[in-house]
Amino acid sequence: MTSPTPHASRVPSDVWTGAGRRVFMQDVGTRDGLQAETVFVPTADKIALVDALSEAGLAKIEVTAFVSPQAIPVLADASEVMLGIRRQPGVIYTVLVPNVRGAERAIEARADELNLVMSASETHNLANLRMTRAQSFAGLAEVAAMARQADGVGDADDAGEGEGGVARGAGVPLNVSLSCSFGCPMEGDVPVATVLGWCERFLEELGARGVTLCDTTGMAYPTQVVALVRAFRERWPDAELTLHFHNTRGMGLANVIAALDAGADRFDASLGGLGGCPYAPGATGNVCTEEIVHALQCMGLDTGVDLARLIAAAKRLPGLIGHPVPSQIVSAGRRLDLHPRPRDFDAIRDRALARNA
Amino acid sequence: MTSPTPHASRVPSDVWTGAGRRVFMQDVGTRDGLQAETVFVPTADKIALVDALSEAGLAKIEVTAFVSPQAIPVLADASEVMLGIRRQPGVIYTVLVPNVRGAERAIEARADELNLVMSASETHNLANLRMTRAQSFAGLAEVAAMARQADGVGDADDAGEGEGGVARGAGVPLNVSLSCSFGCPMEGDVPVATVLGWCERFLEELGARGVTLCDTTGMAYPTQVVALVRAFRERWPDAELTLHFHNTRGMGLANVIAALDAGADRFDASLGGLGGCPYAPGATGNVCTEEIVHALQCMGLDTGVDLARLIAAAKRLPGLIGHPVPSQIVSAGRRLDLHPRPRDFDAIRDRALARNA
Repeated sequence: MTSPTPHASRVPSDVWTGAGRRVFMQDVGTRDGLQAETVFVPTADKIALVDALSEAGLAKIEVTAFVSPQAIPVLADASEVMLGIRRQPGVIYTVLVPNVRGAERAIEARADELNLVMSASETHNLANLRMTRAQSFAGLAEVAAMARQADGVGDADDAGEGEGGVARGAGVPLNVSLSCSFGCPMEGDVPVATVLGWCERFLEELGARGVTLCDTTGMAYPTQVVALVRAFRERWPDAELTLHFHNTRGMGLANVIAALDAGADRFDASLGGLGGCPYAPGATGNVCTEEIVHALQCMGLDTGVDLARLIAAAKRLPGLIGHPVPSQIVSAGRRLDLHPRPRDFDAIRDRALARNA
Repeated sequence: MTSPTPHASRVPSDVWTGAGRRVFMQDVGTRDGLQAETVFVPTADKIALVDALSEAGLAKIEVTAFVSPQAIPVLADASEVMLGIRRQPGVIYTVLVPNVRGAERAIEARADELNLVMSASETHNLANLRMTRAQSFAGLAEVAAMARQADGVGDADDAGEGEGGVARGAGVPLNVSLSCSFGCPMEGDVPVATVLGWCERFLEELGARGVTLCDTTGMAYPTQVVALVRAFRERWPDAELTLHFHNTRGMGLANVIAALDAGADRFDASLGGLGGCPYAPGATGNVCTEEIVHALQCMGLDTGVDLARLIAAAKRLPGLIGHPVPSQIVSAGRRLDLHPRPRDFDAIRDRALARNA
């Protein structure tokens, strides 16, 4: 009758019980999500989405990308969006920038942080950015030099001084997102030493405030996440570390919890689960913000997010993009959003009880 | 720059590293999955699916249900399917039975185990089974009395003598599936004491070999799973305990890992992710067998399953049921199923390298 596992002897990790730990949720839906759509969402609607995310209590919002409007026309209104949002104290408004030109526009538009991108995989970097990794890094270094000289967002009142503890005035802080940190869809596994080697250059050569380890095509699995987060934390205990997971193979939430258990506390996620995966049509992309927040709140973690407001914001998306969103919380509701009993319930019960008489 | 969490101090659980632990995967796709479809899958195709699951190394297969053919016409061929499958030694072939009549048919069809069902929630039991829980339990007791007198499947050669360590000859073993163990979509949370109280009656009054705690509408969350599995294991360290999760709110895999960390080792899952959720149209139902196996194998756990064969079986489903399956592994492949480089990759690289010259 018994199985070979000693059933009664396990003491589970305290990660499952949450214990009030603070987790910083960062939404990338208006950038990473909308970038994957073909429809141009009107500027006023983008601003309203960002404002809704601010009011819902996200720690950081990747508002838009300062990329070539020819390359990505759906984000051509980056400056208008950035200048139109209502900034909430404590929220970091970050933007993706590919180069110095984009960085200049972003700083003009009062971005709190510049998010730069390159790939841990040479093949992916070439295929996606049309440069070698060395060329990409040289470009990042130019942006970093420029950002150090910049004035930042100006008024201390507007600046994000919240949980991240952002220092202001001496340049605009940088984050670097490292694509394919958990594997490349063309090369396969990427060595941990390669990933950490690039992190070292971002943090120590460029002076980046933070690094985002991106699971660009959903190849991360919990064991690997634990190993990489621990290795990162051992070397850089105080750097801002973000995990950016995709749910392509259904492991998104498990990877978030694994990362939490290994000491991470910042996660990118996308409102509604927006954002596709170019290598797997039909597969989901980014982990969904309201799914992750719902799960972590159930577990007793402190996300700082007002889930009802977040879900209300996600419910606007289908009307804006013209199709349903992958979010299972939009489809199914929260776990205690109850359903009515069947219309004939009383008759069913009466008939059942009559059988006992 | 630092966040208040002491980043470097966490020692993560060993559940993330798997460490070769044996996990028993039980497929419910040909029962729980096909039951939710409107199309009748031909008997020969059902048999082929079960045979493919046997060959893929599933520990237990819920082959079909011996219910009224009027009530569930898509499973009207239960006896033919059971008598047509090629039994693999070590695999348990279980079937759902609602009452004595179904149990008689199941035993005639040489089921290795009878799986009975009732709900932990009075409202759900009435709405779903049209009986009070007390009436359902009385029906289960009738089946149990009958099954104790039955001869079981006959030849020891055919019987499942595998990991479950099934005793044979003295009746047919019973499992009881307790719906709404993690919450009722109409009542809300169900007290742990209520769930354990019914488990006690199944194990100690009915003499059931095992209990399945069912997350019928995807309300389970990891903290709750850990608490319930630990409480169960403390009282019944040797009973066969199965966890049956739905992925309705995206927490399926996280719940599986939480249960593993708390000492569980048996999981129901459905090939292709088949099986809907009546309370959330469009939401996914059962956790997907190949998604769970893929993740657990990545983590180093020993599922005993040949994943390639499992995926091949899942890929047959859309042709049989007439629509795509929710499986993200069918959509996206395994994490190391690599993609070709872009057709113009060499030209991209040559142009990039020329910039350095």
